[in-house]
Amino acid sequence: MDGEHNGIDICNDDNSDQRRHSPGMEAVVHKVVAPPKQSTVKKIKGKLKETFFPDDPFKCFKGQPARKKWLLAVKYFFPILDWVPHYTLSLFKSDLLSGLTIASLAIPQGISYAKLASLPPIIGLYSSFVPPLVYAVLGSSRDLAVGPVSIASLIMGAMLRQAVNPSTDPTLFLQLAFTSTLFAGMFQASLGIIRLGFIIDFLSKATLVGFMAGAAIIVALQQLKGLLGITHFTKEMGIVPVMISVVRTRNEWSWQTVLMGTWFLSFLLLTRHLSIKKPKLFWVSAGAPLASVIISTLFVFFFKAQDYNISVIGKLKSGLNGPSLDKLLFDGTYLGITMKTGLITGIISLTEGVAVGRTFASLKGYQIDGNKEMMAIGLMNIVGSCTSCYVTTGAFSRSAVNHNAGCKTPMSNVVMAITVMVTLLLLMPLFAYTPNVVLAAIIIVAVIGLIDIQAAYHIYKMDKVDFLVCICAFLGVIFISVQEGLAIAVGLSIFRILLQITRPKIEILGNIQGTDIYRNLHHYREAKRIPGFIILSVEAPINFANTNYLNERIRRWIEEEQSAENRATSLQYTILDLSSVIAVDTNGLAFFMDLKKTIAKYGLELVFVNPVGEVMEKLQRANELHNFFGTDSLFLTISEAVMSLSSFIKLSP
Amino acid sequence: MDGEHNGIDICNDDNSDQRRHSPGMEAVVHKVVAPPKQSTVKKIKGKLKETFFPDDPFKCFKGQPARKKWLLAVKYFFPILDWVPHYTLSLFKSDLLSGLTIASLAIPQGISYAKLASLPPIIGLYSSFVPPLVYAVLGSSRDLAVGPVSIASLIMGAMLRQAVNPSTDPTLFLQLAFTSTLFAGMFQASLGIIRLGFIIDFLSKATLVGFMAGAAIIVALQQLKGLLGITHFTKEMGIVPVMISVVRTRNEWSWQTVLMGTWFLSFLLLTRHLSIKKPKLFWVSAGAPLASVIISTLFVFFFKAQDYNISVIGKLKSGLNGPSLDKLLFDGTYLGITMKTGLITGIISLTEGVAVGRTFASLKGYQIDGNKEMMAIGLMNIVGSCTSCYVTTGAFSRSAVNHNAGCKTPMSNVVMAITVMVTLLLLMPLFAYTPNVVLAAIIIVAVIGLIDIQAAYHIYKMDKVDFLVCICAFLGVIFISVQEGLAIAVGLSIFRILLQITRPKIEILGNIQGTDIYRNLHHYREAKRIPGFIILSVEAPINFANTNYLNERIRRWIEEEQSAENRATSLQYTILDLSSVIAVDTNGLAFFMDLKKTIAKYGLELVFVNPVGEVMEKLQRANELHNFFGTDSLFLTISEAVMSLSSFIKLSP
Repeated sequence: MDGEHNGIDICNDDNSDQRRHSPGMEAVVHKVVAPPKQSTVKKIKGKLKETFFPDDPFKCFKGQPARKKWLLAVKYFFPILDWVPHYTLSLFKSDLLSGLTIASLAIPQGISYAKLASLPPIIGLYSSFVPPLVYAVLGSSRDLAVGPVSIASLIMGAMLRQAVNPSTDPTLFLQLAFTSTLFAGMFQASLGIIRLGFIIDFLSKATLVGFMAGAAIIVALQQLKGLLGITHFTKEMGIVPVMISVVRTRNEWSWQTVLMGTWFLSFLLLTRHLSIKKPKLFWVSAGAPLASVIISTLFVFFFKAQDYNISVIGKLKSGLNGPSLDKLLFDGTYLGITMKTGLITGIISLTEGVAVGRTFASLKGYQIDGNKEMMAIGLMNIVGSCTSCYVTTGAFSRSAVNHNAGCKTPMSNVVMAITVMVTLLLLMPLFAYTPNVVLAAIIIVAVIGLIDIQAAYHIYKMDKVDFLVCICAFLGVIFISVQEGLAIAVGLSIFRILLQITRPKIEILGNIQGTDIYRNLHHYREAKRIPGFIILSVEAPINFANTNYLNERIRRWIEEEQSAENRATSLQYTILDLSSVIAVDTNGLAFFMDLKKTIAKYGLELVFVNPVGEVMEKLQRANELHNFFGTDSLFLTISEAVMSLSSFIKLSP
Repeated sequence: MDGEHNGIDICNDDNSDQRRHSPGMEAVVHKVVAPPKQSTVKKIKGKLKETFFPDDPFKCFKGQPARKKWLLAVKYFFPILDWVPHYTLSLFKSDLLSGLTIASLAIPQGISYAKLASLPPIIGLYSSFVPPLVYAVLGSSRDLAVGPVSIASLIMGAMLRQAVNPSTDPTLFLQLAFTSTLFAGMFQASLGIIRLGFIIDFLSKATLVGFMAGAAIIVALQQLKGLLGITHFTKEMGIVPVMISVVRTRNEWSWQTVLMGTWFLSFLLLTRHLSIKKPKLFWVSAGAPLASVIISTLFVFFFKAQDYNISVIGKLKSGLNGPSLDKLLFDGTYLGITMKTGLITGIISLTEGVAVGRTFASLKGYQIDGNKEMMAIGLMNIVGSCTSCYVTTGAFSRSAVNHNAGCKTPMSNVVMAITVMVTLLLLMPLFAYTPNVVLAAIIIVAVIGLIDIQAAYHIYKMDKVDFLVCICAFLGVIFISVQEGLAIAVGLSIFRILLQITRPKIEILGNIQGTDIYRNLHHYREAKRIPGFIILSVEAPINFANTNYLNERIRRWIEEEQSAENRATSLQYTILDLSSVIAVDTNGLAFFMDLKKTIAKYGLELVFVNPVGEVMEKLQRANELHNFFGTDSLFLTISEAVMSLSSFIKLSP
């Protein structure tokens, strides 16, 4: 903060200037020019391209003959054509193994998740049959294992139960589920088609960590019904009503169910722990759920445990998915709730699917086109809604198993689908004796993986505001509701961005002695003030949201600098470094004119440094109308501005 | 795009480096350091201060004795104490003149605006009596003329009419109006108290221009009822239903009313035109409304025009405002609508009041504290709601007249209030014969000033997106509804900001020959690529909303650069200039690590330049955990990075 009298004088800079330029170059000061002219149409085209096609998907079409273009287009929409022509037996061996492994996980999880969504268990199996086949044709991820997932099931169930009671009106509930799935698919596909996929980016990592953990706890709490054998369970989801309901119904608890539940829960947790410790043994935890189902079913069957207060799934119809096109309901009464449910489950499942796809793609070093994935997931759900499936996506846990089991192509999804098909055709009667408590245990163990304490700690270490967002999502989900918790977290994240714009940083810069580098005085101690100048750098776009703030804040900077003591030279120039100002709007332009007047009131002159691209263009256009700055108050670098202006600096008497 | 072989070689830079440093300095490369350590508490305190107290309102309290502090605090809350002690007779002369002038405008406008809000005309006069007195004590603007305004009246009427029919249930309607006013006041005052006044900044100039013009048209259309003498007018506000209603009721049109309306409308427009041409004759247009009221009233009285299809106001009760505390209604049925109405009229009227205050303050060269103004306007409405007033604020047109008439202090509001008081006590019987058509003409002429075509054209010239926002606000207001038009425009403005963050600019930089300046290659033709390097500058905070985009986009830059032909030197370094990256979150930190890996896949090394303050801190913290970059890949300036690394560049064979 001191050091104005440390001997740098202006001549020094003049010398450095001569030193800096190669001999023979006349121009001492570089002119700031507007960027090369572009027509408005071209500019808009460029902006639209950056917004919607940042990945330049048409690159490979350029300069190709028409026939090739068609072929490429077909390949673009059907990624299966990329790998089927080169498919080999050895690839199939890997895919067969991984397909069977994820099938063993998909069958018990499918049944469990359908129950979580208050749907008949068989819908969970249907949803593990058709969508994986569709994804195998359209999807570009090699690792994604497709099927129903816990959080989307939870949300769909919770939202639809607000409109219809699934136990008194199961047919209508099912119709609403299919219709919501259709809307989810249409929403997902259209996000991909109109290339607005970046909307899912607004679910930041912090939001997702908090949300997932909260949802996992809500899902686990719902399983207390199955785990304790309660028959009259609350319909609410929050932690408080569920715990109250659990305590109130303690006379319904069945010790046989609790005993069985504890046993299988311990078994599943143990296998999970083993697989985490030794990743090579991934198949232990992958096979454990199916093993639990088989063991518990046999147990119930042989010991007639259903007579001892242990509830079982009951008879399931054999056979494949029927068409469900006639079950789609566009009745005005329920249109609102199905669209809302579709939108929310759609965006949540899309986020999970794309995130999982990206994670494994980056592990294996290939790339995923987010928009294409959205179309694939969307179409999969549209087709699903017409074939008795509810909302599906790429599941994290099963994709991880798929990856560990060595899958090579989406063929593993086909293998899984065929296995599920065989189950649907032949093995359905066996599930009649499967106890519900085992399904509850399977869900609990599956969702435990969604609670990522390490990630939360990492966020806490890195960024306190992000951690706040994370905690808000978590608490919002468990205490208010799943949707509102998510909305709060997204709102907070966006508010944070807006706050950064509304209260942009203004840095006061100083010169690092002996160089022409200017850096923040409060960051670099070597940086020293230049007598007579106040050098400010604005670090945000200047627009309606911050012009009032900037005006006040810059005024305060100047007052503070002017009132500082021990100043031999009075302030004469305010240099505004615009390098980081990437955009201005009309409010911003008005701000520049106001600022010039404000600064003049303090007896100072305003100088702009390095307005970039669009900003320079707009400044120039505004200047044509209002003529508020001359070319002598525009410089390319701070050091050139200081150098040129320092000869005008008068020393105070 | 060419020019890699233009003879700059790396030695050149090495030389320039030696030239750049003063003799005797050893350090060739400056170290990037973290900013001085601050405790988390101190950091949070600093951020909160910048967010909520950017104007540093406690500055004047510092180092003062306790008694002085008290005095200053009282002065802070009662700005009247600033000017009353120095008040002189000559100041009063000016204030008397301007006060009488605005009173002559306030009386007819008050009656008209109350009718616009479907309230009894006398409420408009009440609202021009108490609130100005409150503002005179609490307000800090010297020019603001306080009273009811057209747009807030329009919105309040439109919103409350959705809940209650003012013609069948006038008492309830009045109660709702007072209650909404209370909520508006509470909302406004609390924005000021919790210092969230920046919320009104989100109404950008473009939004306001479009919104005001749309609202003016809606208000003017409503006056067709009075102007044509229609009795069965539609309750809707949109341009389409109003025009349909006007045509359908053409048999109700009264030619006497139309004649009288046209006459007074022409008279008022003429005086307005005159005052615009010759600003010194401002009193002509200021006095014209009152003159019209007097002339038309006398005309009706003497010619018994009310018998010829010309509707008149009718008998008005004399006397001052009664208390209305007992009329505030917190009934559950109407709580929602009154709160919503209060919120929207509150924010709209606050925006108008603060904007008007700021405009005239900047004309006269004094300052206005936005948060203090909000408290003043809020308290004025709270007091108003208890004394039979509806929502008031600083009106633009009357403030302009006040300013032109030479007002010096808020005393002009007191003069106006006293004039209105005299009117209320003595002159009310005279208004019984005032024809409604004159009030319609007065409103139309008053709102014409809100349509600012010049401003819209200016916005069009400066910024096309802003113009789009403006047009959306305009069309939304006239075709959908006033509130929704506003919401669309605000939503668009915020979406634009988010889009700037979601699709940040990445610039590719080149060296301006013979200097160490690096600028955008596509902006400065003098800037040339440095062989072996790709230098990118990211121009936004890096966070969840843009990490996916940045990753893809940077990959594309590298691919494009690598595939460019005629390259003697293969790319070896990617320099990422972080000067403009003002913040990162946890997603951003993960992005840096990902990017390093991605870039390594292309055989390139990643180098960071000039991470500022918080970004440097977080990078360091992330590096402690993950150790993903060394100190040798961190530089203070691009030119130092190029200089240090260029010795490692290998020329292609």
